[in-house]
Amino acid sequence: MCRWIAYRGESIALEQYVTAPAHSLVVQSLKALESTASTNGDGFGLGWYAEHDEPGLYREVRPAWSDENLRHLCRHIRSRLFFAHVRASTGTPITRPNCHPFAYGRWMFMHNGQVGDWSLIRRKVEAMIPDGFYGARIGTTDSEAVFLAILGAGADADPAGATGRTLTMLADMVKASGTTQPLRFTSALTDGRDLYAFRYANSTVANSLYYRESKDNILVVSEPLDGERDFWKPVPTNTMLVARAGAKAKLVPFLQEQQVAAE
Amino acid sequence: MCRWIAYRGESIALEQYVTAPAHSLVVQSLKALESTASTNGDGFGLGWYAEHDEPGLYREVRPAWSDENLRHLCRHIRSRLFFAHVRASTGTPITRPNCHPFAYGRWMFMHNGQVGDWSLIRRKVEAMIPDGFYGARIGTTDSEAVFLAILGAGADADPAGATGRTLTMLADMVKASGTTQPLRFTSALTDGRDLYAFRYANSTVANSLYYRESKDNILVVSEPLDGERDFWKPVPTNTMLVARAGAKAKLVPFLQEQQVAAE
Amino acid sequence: MCRWIAYRGESIALEQYVTAPAHSLVVQSLKALESTASTNGDGFGLGWYAEHDEPGLYREVRPAWSDENLRHLCRHIRSRLFFAHVRASTGTPITRPNCHPFAYGRWMFMHNGQVGDWSLIRRKVEAMIPDGFYGARIGTTDSEAVFLAILGAGADADPAGATGRTLTMLADMVKASGTTQPLRFTSALTDGRDLYAFRYANSTVANSLYYRESKDNILVVSEPLDGERDFWKPVPTNTMLVARAGAKAKLVPFLQEQQVAAE
Amino acid sequence: MCRWIAYRGESIALEQYVTAPAHSLVVQSLKALESTASTNGDGFGLGWYAEHDEPGLYREVRPAWSDENLRHLCRHIRSRLFFAHVRASTGTPITRPNCHPFAYGRWMFMHNGQVGDWSLIRRKVEAMIPDGFYGARIGTTDSEAVFLAILGAGADADPAGATGRTLTMLADMVKASGTTQPLRFTSALTDGRDLYAFRYANSTVANSLYYRESKDNILVVSEPLDGERDFWKPVPTNTMLVARAGAKAKLVPFLQEQQVAAE
Repeated sequence: MCRWIAYRGESIALEQYVTAPAHSLVVQSLKALESTASTNGDGFGLGWYAEHDEPGLYREVRPAWSDENLRHLCRHIRSRLFFAHVRASTGTPITRPNCHPFAYGRWMFMHNGQVGDWSLIRRKVEAMIPDGFYGARIGTTDSEAVFLAILGAGADADPAGATGRTLTMLADMVKASGTTQPLRFTSALTDGRDLYAFRYANSTVANSLYYRESKDNILVVSEPLDGERDFWKPVPTNTMLVARAGAKAKLVPFLQEQQVAAE
Repeated sequence: MCRWIAYRGESIALEQYVTAPAHSLVVQSLKALESTASTNGDGFGLGWYAEHDEPGLYREVRPAWSDENLRHLCRHIRSRLFFAHVRASTGTPITRPNCHPFAYGRWMFMHNGQVGDWSLIRRKVEAMIPDGFYGARIGTTDSEAVFLAILGAGADADPAGATGRTLTMLADMVKASGTTQPLRFTSALTDGRDLYAFRYANSTVANSLYYRESKDNILVVSEPLDGERDFWKPVPTNTMLVARAGAKAKLVPFLQEQQVAAE
Repeated sequence: MCRWIAYRGESIALEQYVTAPAHSLVVQSLKALESTASTNGDGFGLGWYAEHDEPGLYREVRPAWSDENLRHLCRHIRSRLFFAHVRASTGTPITRPNCHPFAYGRWMFMHNGQVGDWSLIRRKVEAMIPDGFYGARIGTTDSEAVFLAILGAGADADPAGATGRTLTMLADMVKASGTTQPLRFTSALTDGRDLYAFRYANSTVANSLYYRESKDNILVVSEPLDGERDFWKPVPTNTMLVARAGAKAKLVPFLQEQQVAAE
Repeated sequence: MCRWIAYRGESIALEQYVTAPAHSLVVQSLKALESTASTNGDGFGLGWYAEHDEPGLYREVRPAWSDENLRHLCRHIRSRLFFAHVRASTGTPITRPNCHPFAYGRWMFMHNGQVGDWSLIRRKVEAMIPDGFYGARIGTTDSEAVFLAILGAGADADPAGATGRTLTMLADMVKASGTTQPLRFTSALTDGRDLYAFRYANSTVANSLYYRESKDNILVVSEPLDGERDFWKPVPTNTMLVARAGAKAKLVPFLQEQQVAAE
């Protein structure tokens, strides 16, 4: 399991949430509280939108907690929409292309979870990626493959629908593979304008997800960044949070029927 | 283009060829003479056999010329059969799993060349890897895919034949893809006992390959390690060098008919 | 020898000079033209001023030419004053703290050159660093030591004078050490507002330095970034370029008397 | 605090203690039990003696738990005397030269502890290093400085005495600096033949140290490698363990009088 944060709102320095809080993402890289992996030291990444349509990325294989570059970048880069992620690998190698977030054109994605037994369905998931997006597969993670599959499923026209269709197919694949390992998908997706976050599992336990909103600013996190638990609202299991630019966040059921059908 | 050396013979310290010679592989990492890329600074790797059937590997993304670990390992590790490789990437990321050599069980492989326009045939080449070997694909290079395809084509029973069949298929794929980029395959393969080296191209220019033999020791290199050019014999284009354990090296035609047919 | 660029002027994306030109600094990392070391692959660094008094830093041990993070940062970060540096080590280890530029408070510095035989005078140079600055010595290079010595010599009040006094002492130390190796100092220094560049040697050959000016923008470089040689003016040997904020650059003799005395 | 192991005995594969045990050093890198820092992910190192007088070194900035090179080396390298160390930095940068063990000629050293407030006494400790050894200071840690000071104090002639004299001076420096931070020194030193381990503190709590002996084989560890606590004997505080080649280990009081005097 990994930890991540996603922010959309007025332009702020990344340090405000990545490094400054008492239980910041960088603190979580060394000691997470709501993760099965307390240490998330298998690389990390930042992705942010500034003046270009496509995001900037900084990804590194070293742990976040000791990376002086990360502290500098978080202090000196401002953004109105950014992702940050600390990784606990579930088996794929510790390389920069395997670090989150992933970007393609104006799209960006990051993930915390697992896709059943990856070794059993890897080829099937990779086959979901259309040729036009396959050149962008520069790593070997399940997460990158799922991202490219979502794009291939039509994220440009309908991000939520493309994600839902992809997850439905993934759930079927996982089930058909005969594994007892779950499909857990706690992810964030954006086109540089609107922010979508998903908390889904094909079993009863989904990976944690919280959010905090003030005015038009929204912050979505794997676990609260401080002890003021009242300010952090959990995203319910099998729910999508939609935070369109300039609008309040909405919670929308996500694949709940399928979930019921699976039980 | 990359540079590599392969050794099979009495047990020696790796430094004897990797770091000590005037134009050692480490010197070539900074300044190669017979390569289109004079700098081979995109990572490197060592693979060696000691007391186990499977080889040890040391692969790193930094340039070989400044890696103090590499100097230590070459000085302190002895082997009767080892590969060393310095990389000049043709586009795939600089990650450890993308560095040569590649190992699977007792098999080891490294490559200098290119497989046409990789973006055009990548999926086809990956599809050549049988399921049983696909879990070993931990990187994204053409070279690793070709290695696993060779293993899947039956290297255990017939290494030369499996390599030949795979290359024939590759040549067909490259041709069918419509690219003008060549298939160049200057590679080394071993099962920990016998050494096979290949110098092949589907066009008139194959990447350079030389060897030097004394008693039962054989050294195969991308380019000579010193100025004594008389001691280094070129491997002819479209030729396989076979150095079985305890026997003299032999040069054998490799896909020469196919080559003629292609012209 | 290393290669570097320094820019001060209107706010621009770093890519404009670090990655975009035909002979950009990143191109120079792989193939420099006016350097004894054609390859500058021993790490690199960026330093830039944005909204804070102190600069942001990104320093990495890998070669600049293959660093995807560097390309992202140069595309997405804008600055009115930045340094970029690609390193060819003269012997000290390839570590991030040994990569240029160096920063202390609002000050930033980078260097191309050598300080005689560093092994002979290292302790003496380190002794020039006042206690108050010694805690900032996190690496082992001569360059970092000289920077901290310059700060300790009173850069806050008189940057040019502090640098001159420090270099005079260095020249004496190098001479007294009995080495035949030169003192070469082609450096850039800034307080986040004014830019100082130095081209100095205690022998007849100083490392190359050029500049190009348009309106209030100035770019100082180790070697021209393109083939339009007429636009690039060489900084004469033993000369300081002073580019105060909002003013035209001036060339000022630097330690020329001392140089004459030394001959 | 860091974690380490030291072995001297018959030649074994490093994996036997570094990676194989239930609570191996690599496991401790992710989750140590008797350390204030449960995560020791700030780099690691191996040092081993084979056929040369001086040891081989492999040091890396990434965490030990995910380093595939480390697993390979531990499986394929055998040694009769080796050190392994996982680091939790107390403030100095995460660089290879700052990773333990440190080597100089045939000597090797590693450390777990701290030297009071390093910022207060750094220059004094560095001044203890004789000129002849100062060129070997390629990092910035307190540990490397102490090692070179011990060598300078005459380790060649009298390792235990040189260490004792150095520690006495360090204890005086720490005391004179006025800090409340302790001097804690739990270290291993060897000349490639005999093994010395120290457990010392100038206050009542010394960092943990255990050993296990069978025939002529001795293993000294920061914390037991498995749950069989009966087999692991603690080294008492302010005690030196001496394991000369071919002899049983002896426990000898180390600076106990000084300790009493300090209380």
